[in-house]
Order: sequence, then structure tokens, then C-alpha cells
Amino acid sequence: MTSLSAPFTDFAARVRQRVDDALAAALPADPDCPALLHEAMLYSLLAPGKRLRPLLVLMAAEACGSELSVAMPAACAVEMIHAYSLVHDDLPAMDDDAMRRGRPSCHAKFGEATAILVGDALQARAFELLAREMAPAVAATCCAELGAAAGASALVGGQCDDLAAEGQDGTLEQLQAIHRRKTGALIRVSLRLGAIAAGAPTDATERLDRYGQRVGVVFQITDDLLDHEGSAEDLGKATQKDAKRGKLTYPGLLGVEASREQARQLTLEALADLAPLGPPAKPLCALAQFVLERRR
Amino acid sequence: MTSLSAPFTDFAARVRQRVDDALAAALPADPDCPALLHEAMLYSLLAPGKRLRPLLVLMAAEACGSELSVAMPAACAVEMIHAYSLVHDDLPAMDDDAMRRGRPSCHAKFGEATAILVGDALQARAFELLAREMAPAVAATCCAELGAAAGASALVGGQCDDLAAEGQDGTLEQLQAIHRRKTGALIRVSLRLGAIAAGAPTDATERLDRYGQRVGVVFQITDDLLDHEGSAEDLGKATQKDAKRGKLTYPGLLGVEASREQARQLTLEALADLAPLGPPAKPLCALAQFVLERRR
Repeated sequence: MTSLSAPFTDFAARVRQRVDDALAAALPADPDCPALLHEAMLYSLLAPGKRLRPLLVLMAAEACGSELSVAMPAACAVEMIHAYSLVHDDLPAMDDDAMRRGRPSCHAKFGEATAILVGDALQARAFELLAREMAPAVAATCCAELGAAAGASALVGGQCDDLAAEGQDGTLEQLQAIHRRKTGALIRVSLRLGAIAAGAPTDATERLDRYGQRVGVVFQITDDLLDHEGSAEDLGKATQKDAKRGKLTYPGLLGVEASREQARQLTLEALADLAPLGPPAKPLCALAQFVLERRR
Repeated sequence: MTSLSAPFTDFAARVRQRVDDALAAALPADPDCPALLHEAMLYSLLAPGKRLRPLLVLMAAEACGSELSVAMPAACAVEMIHAYSLVHDDLPAMDDDAMRRGRPSCHAKFGEATAILVGDALQARAFELLAREMAPAVAATCCAELGAAAGASALVGGQCDDLAAEGQDGTLEQLQAIHRRKTGALIRVSLRLGAIAAGAPTDATERLDRYGQRVGVVFQITDDLLDHEGSAEDLGKATQKDAKRGKLTYPGLLGVEASREQARQLTLEALADLAPLGPPAKPLCALAQFVLERRR
């Protein structure tokens, strides 16, 4: 990793364990929750991963001058939505993935019925957590924004069109419309919730939102490039899988070099979005570099 | 139907169309929502049904002296949670029901992937609607209460244990613990959200909650009795299905007569809970009778 991304990797190293502790604390054992369901929820929520979305929430809050703890419920809520969407996306009727980051996916380990219920329960808990733990003045706004980002016109709609696009010839516009909803909406709302939790002015929230839109696209482009070029060892899952299934990808539509160039250009624009926020936005600037240069 | 249940059936006749209109209006077409997903969401949300839960929300609000419109977003939100849970419960990996109230279930008509996504999107929309459309002072409370009722220690946990109990010998306590979460929690929260939307004092909210607990059990007992005795024509689905699958039921555990007697006793207690609320609670009193005497 280059030194340009150090403020992000430092932030992640400093905060990652706090995030995982907060996630675990947000799913306490309860006599009314079946033990197997609880185990499967923890397995899915605390799975190995970058915790990118909660880190985005927390970096946005810090960029707006807030303590991290103020935004921690929002950080956990977006990760719960992300985790639930992975569990459901992996189901046999969906992407049919038996592995997720080198471990059996939820349904492969706990059965399909439990996996469906794990996703359903994680989604409900995300909203409950936001509503209970955020300051009352912002809790409703956060629930409304997360509900829209997780809904039929965003996360779910993107996954629906992504499944429908398999094996079809598609255009760049279709690919972008899918990613904007399937991946981009949750990244954007992570930044927005961090800003809202921090009580940021609208201008700062909108800047972070635009940054999120651009970095979200870069994330998808590098994801496609890694799938195109990567080895199974690096990624912990079968690669070139997208291409084999006929999924739309950036390198497939634009070519590898033009995809790289677009990722570089969007990263520059994302950095410009953050410039007025000054030094507190350094970890987010570094993340933009990190996403551009990531090898996994 | 006897005249005792007339205030409820009158209320339902007066309000049912408003509920369905509000439900349809809560799922407007949107260019970012795939057309098939939208169609499947409307198919599932506006399916034939009693609309019991939204009517409970509205009756509770009226019993606490409020205009119905104040509670309509909460009424729609609980129906969305109910509708999503039916869609997911019907999936092949869950209860595997190809029919629902005389029509193909969502996955039978739209495919399994779409049905999973329909449920996911309806749940997200429920919280978004509550958060956006309820008065800010109560929106967060409503989201927290609905999140708990829809979560791993309530709706989802009950369904999980219900699936696990299939073909097992069970006790009355296990049966009650399942119903309390799988069916009872959403009925109770319907009444609570109606009271909260109306700005009711805690005492009234708790009375309505206790009423909901009792009527919820009566509803389940009569459901089991109808399944035990009913004809396929009356119910629009295969009957005695529960018994054939080895599910725990009240008549199976207590016998038919003791089940009936318990339903009668709980109905009397539910009526006593409502007595202090006076005439505005008449439709809820009548509903308790209606649930006790229903033939479908």
C-alpha cells in the first residue's frame, strides 16, 4: 500500500476493532431469539471483511467534526444492511454462492431457511438500532434515508436488475444504473448518515454524498478489474466468475485501460469534493486512493 | 356474523378502501424500481386479505381519540411487514406454499429470486414510510417498536422456531412462545403504533397492548381450529395442512373443546382491558368477538 492511503489504513487500524465490538454488542443474546438464528446472524455480521461502510459513516462524522461514538449506531446499521444483502444475494435462487470470503456462505453453513431469516432479522435490527440509539432529532431522518437506500429503487432494485441482466448484452448505462443502486446507494447513505449524525450543514452532507457517488463507481470498476485479472488466492473466491456468468462489467464494456482511466478521473473528482472540508477529511481522501489502488 | 361484531365490520367496511388506497399510494411507480419488482410488490401487498393489522392500528388510534389519517403511515408500515413475512414464509425453503388465499404465492407467480427481493424491499419501505410520514416526535419510537416486533426476538424468531418445531413433539409452552413472536408481536405492535401515533398516555398504550396479546392468542386458536375443521373452500388454501406437516396446534395439544374455552376466556379478558377506553374502543371490542366467532 502506498503512503497516500496511510491516513485511511491508520484510521481503519484504529477503529476497526471498535466497529466489530459495537456490531457484536448490537446483537446480544436474547432468550426469545433462537440460538441457531443468533449464531448465524453473528456469523454473517462479523464475517471477515473490510467494514468499508461503517468506516465511511465514521470517517464522514469525523470529517464533519463529530466524535465517532455519535455515529456508531449508524455505522452498525449500514453494516447490518450490507451483511443481510450479502446473505440473500448468496442464496441458491439468487447468485448461488456457496463461499463468501473464504468461508461457507450463510445458507451453505446454516441452511437456506435460516439464511433467509438471518437477512430478514438483520434488516429489522438495523432500523431498530438507528431508531433507538441515534439522537431523537436525527433518528427519523436516518431511518428514512437508510430505508430508501435499502429499498426497491436502490439496493434491492439494483440486485433485481443485476440478476435480470445476467447473460444479456448490456450497455454502459445499464451497468452504471445497476451499480448506482446495488452498490452505490449504500455507500452514499453511509456518508450521509455520518454527516447527519454529526449535525453537519447540508452543504457538507452533499459534498460527502458526491464523493461517495464517485468513490462508489471507482470501487465497482476496481472490483470488476480484480475479478477480470485477479487470482483466486488474492480474492478468496472464484474469479472471472462474473465473466463466466455473462455479467456486465466495466472491463468487458470499456476495456481494461479505459476502465482504469475512468477510475483515476473519478478519484480526482472525489478528492476535489472533499477539499473544502480540510484536514478532518484526510482519511476519506486516503480511502479514495486506497480504493483506486486496492489489490483485493 | 352476529350483531356483536357489527361495530368492527362497520369500521372495516368504512375504512378498508382507504387502507388499500394508502397502501397503493405508498408504492408509487419509480423509474429506479424494476417494473417486475414493482408489480410483484403490489401483487403481494394488495393481495386479498382482511387487512387486520392496519385496521388494528387505525382502531387503536381512534380509541385514543385521534383522526385516522394520523396513523395511516403506521397502518401501511405494519401491513408491509406482514406482507413481506408471508412472501418469505411461502418460499420453497420455508413453508413451501404455492398458493396464498386462492392465488399463486409470490414466488410461484414471479419466481423465487423476485419473491426474496419483494420481501426485502417491502421491509425497507415499511421503515422508510414510518420515518418519513409520521410526526417527527413519534417516528423514531415507531421505527424502534416495529423493528423489535419484526426482528430476531419476535416475528423472525417465531418463524424460525416454528420451522424447527415441524414434526417434533412440542408442549403448549413452546406453541405459545412461537405464536407470541410469530403472530402476536405484530398484532401487539399494531395496537401500540396506533396509540403512539395518537399521542396516547402510556396507560392506554399498555391496555391496548394487553388486549392485543389476548386477541392475538384467540386469533391463533381460531386459526388452528379452522385448519382442523375447515373446508378448503372456506379458507382458500389446503386445510389440515398444519396437522399433516406435524405442526404444533392448539386443538392438537389441548383438544377442540378446551381450545374453544380458552379462546372464550381470553376474549372476556380482552374486553375488560378496553372497558376504560369507553365508546371509541367499540370497534376493537367488536373485533374481539369477530375473531372468536370467525369462520375463515
